[in-house]
Amino acid sequence: MKIGLLGFGNVGQGIAAILNENASLLTKRTHLTFTIKKALVRNIEKSQGSVPLTTDANDILNDAEIDTIIEVIGGEEPALSYIKTALSSGKNVVTANKAVIAKHRTTLLELARKNKVQIRFEASVGGGIPILQALTMGYAANQIQSLYGILNGTTNYILTQMETEQKEYPQILKNAQKLGFAEADPTMDISGLDTAYKLIILAGVAFHTVINLDDLYYEGIENITLKDIHFAKELGYKIKLLAIGKIMQNQNSKMIFKVHPTLIPTSHALAGVNNEFNAVFVEGNAVGGSMMVGKGAGALPTGSAVVSDLIHIALNPNSEPDCASDTQAKLLSISQTSSQFYLRLTVEDILGTLEKITALLSQNKVSLAKLFQREKDKNTAEIVMITHLIQEEHMKNAIGELMKLPQIKEVPTLIRVGLDEAGY
Amino acid sequence: MKIGLLGFGNVGQGIAAILNENASLLTKRTHLTFTIKKALVRNIEKSQGSVPLTTDANDILNDAEIDTIIEVIGGEEPALSYIKTALSSGKNVVTANKAVIAKHRTTLLELARKNKVQIRFEASVGGGIPILQALTMGYAANQIQSLYGILNGTTNYILTQMETEQKEYPQILKNAQKLGFAEADPTMDISGLDTAYKLIILAGVAFHTVINLDDLYYEGIENITLKDIHFAKELGYKIKLLAIGKIMQNQNSKMIFKVHPTLIPTSHALAGVNNEFNAVFVEGNAVGGSMMVGKGAGALPTGSAVVSDLIHIALNPNSEPDCASDTQAKLLSISQTSSQFYLRLTVEDILGTLEKITALLSQNKVSLAKLFQREKDKNTAEIVMITHLIQEEHMKNAIGELMKLPQIKEVPTLIRVGLDEAGY
Repeated sequence: MKIGLLGFGNVGQGIAAILNENASLLTKRTHLTFTIKKALVRNIEKSQGSVPLTTDANDILNDAEIDTIIEVIGGEEPALSYIKTALSSGKNVVTANKAVIAKHRTTLLELARKNKVQIRFEASVGGGIPILQALTMGYAANQIQSLYGILNGTTNYILTQMETEQKEYPQILKNAQKLGFAEADPTMDISGLDTAYKLIILAGVAFHTVINLDDLYYEGIENITLKDIHFAKELGYKIKLLAIGKIMQNQNSKMIFKVHPTLIPTSHALAGVNNEFNAVFVEGNAVGGSMMVGKGAGALPTGSAVVSDLIHIALNPNSEPDCASDTQAKLLSISQTSSQFYLRLTVEDILGTLEKITALLSQNKVSLAKLFQREKDKNTAEIVMITHLIQEEHMKNAIGELMKLPQIKEVPTLIRVGLDEAGY
Repeated sequence: MKIGLLGFGNVGQGIAAILNENASLLTKRTHLTFTIKKALVRNIEKSQGSVPLTTDANDILNDAEIDTIIEVIGGEEPALSYIKTALSSGKNVVTANKAVIAKHRTTLLELARKNKVQIRFEASVGGGIPILQALTMGYAANQIQSLYGILNGTTNYILTQMETEQKEYPQILKNAQKLGFAEADPTMDISGLDTAYKLIILAGVAFHTVINLDDLYYEGIENITLKDIHFAKELGYKIKLLAIGKIMQNQNSKMIFKVHPTLIPTSHALAGVNNEFNAVFVEGNAVGGSMMVGKGAGALPTGSAVVSDLIHIALNPNSEPDCASDTQAKLLSISQTSSQFYLRLTVEDILGTLEKITALLSQNKVSLAKLFQREKDKNTAEIVMITHLIQEEHMKNAIGELMKLPQIKEVPTLIRVGLDEAGY
């Protein structure tokens, strides 16, 4: 297999290292040799490595000898155009590009099918975890009923470190940036957008459905405080940024896709997935609850997924993508769903405040499963509650009403609670 | 795909149910329909179900219309003969039979290759977990360095329940038998033999190696007591029956394969895998530490794996098994390896006993990482120790010497400690 490598940064060099170090193993497994014929770089002088370099993508895209393109530039353009050109000229494509795949998966699969080549993107979700392969093959006997993913290493690292280091978000973020676990501009990760892209890909493959970014609710971890992590722990939960995709059997099998910080019971397998690790928990109608865990980023784990796609192409040169039957999802918006909520209020600690608040919640159809009040300082107290399953709309109304109360001193903190079934 | 089903018990009926319930999904994924043309049963009157039945295997094996055989009879014969006949007459085979595959994997793969058909056996290890597929494809870019598996649901259920129910092994076993989590004759599970078979299959695929049962050390959970579970917990460990396969980089890359009860640090992912769940933790040279978890047994999880094999055959009708290069493993025997050990002694509680014991251990090159002594009753005490890494031979000698001491009141309890790296 003659490979053209678009992008020779961290991940590109990881791929080259794997192809080099594990060469004899790969040949044993596929009866093929894998050669990077040329790699695209921005600046030849700055680049180093043992493969021939070029600064002109056409050197690679027009090379008839190259049968497979690996795209690890990232970002939407020019990556998308390169991928389209490659597929159109009969080259297989392996990509780690979540933005491109989240937005153009079906178009690109269709283009690949037309040109009798393949496009594969295992590395675009969950780093080294072979979750897409598991969904298309290992769990393929199953109707997937729900999936829950910790899909962003940066936010999982930050949430874990907040708890272990007992420090607030801004300081942990700074440390993470120093250690290379967060980007200089971390917005994409922190805001939940990165996780949303990955959920679109994952759920697309799992449920054979087309999802647009607008169809999906996402929320980041910017407002999670150490205090909430502590209270959650006291109540038996960990806070994780969770991607959720679910068929609502009792709502005409409509689907819900959402990303938000979530209180997960500590007994659930996902609660134990820490630091830069990613995990996907899948519930299938035959296999039951199953989980895959691994490193969600990094040159070698990402490279592992890219090279496994190369091996798949080598072993199954004629396999066809199974996206032909993908349809637009019938969706519930988040306001049509119900959740349990964690609610933290800072209140003036005067007689009758608690009664007033619980009465107001009750009037707004918000019923409580757990509640405790704790003195904060001389005049203020904190009230922490876990609600029963409440319609999002009712919760929103209740918060609106609460904020009118003069006793409420700060904007209430609201985090959803999820995964009440213990998993295992 | 026209299927002949050998065995129509619990698992066979689970497979039929999946093929029936998920029929439209399976057709969507493969553009094929899956029909069970006939199922082999022992006794037609006793059987029930919606598929045509026969008591004569030849009715199925000689049916030219049947292209794929599913074997879920279990046990070595007649299953092995049926499988050989099927492959020789050009039929694909999917089997859940661990004994047959552990002993005859390479022979059967070779026979399949000769006849241009496939034999697949995902369900023979880890129930619904698609671990063999992950090893041959998802992690295929990696040199696997080690694998650790909880591969037997019965023993994992028993060990978990001993802790949660605070009861000794015999009583928990009885409950497990009532609930269907243990067989009437549980020897195969309890003794570690079932896990050993599965390790042979798993490690064979992961390391491209042929392993015989005699090459492998295995030990069961019969002697684990509630007391040891408690002491282990106090020291920060869980006791699990662990299958271990490892390349010893510092010993000429020789391999070690073994199955034994193991103290696993509670911080390790495998420590959280409870009850009937199975898990495989894999370390690859690119992907790093990765884990897959799921139900290890049961009609539907096993059926999920069997049907995923059917789907693989449907989608890749010409794929060839990659076993041609499998070689006999260069092995270390367990006596050539080192372990940390948990050692519990019941001693006469007289002045100087502890000093005597630690001196004797030290003379036998057994050094200690942790130790505590606890009064048992008026005249006896229990000493619990965790050793450093000790050669198995030295440990054996030390135990021999210890047993000569008159102060030692019971046969010492010795359990290996494993997985000191925290994983995640």
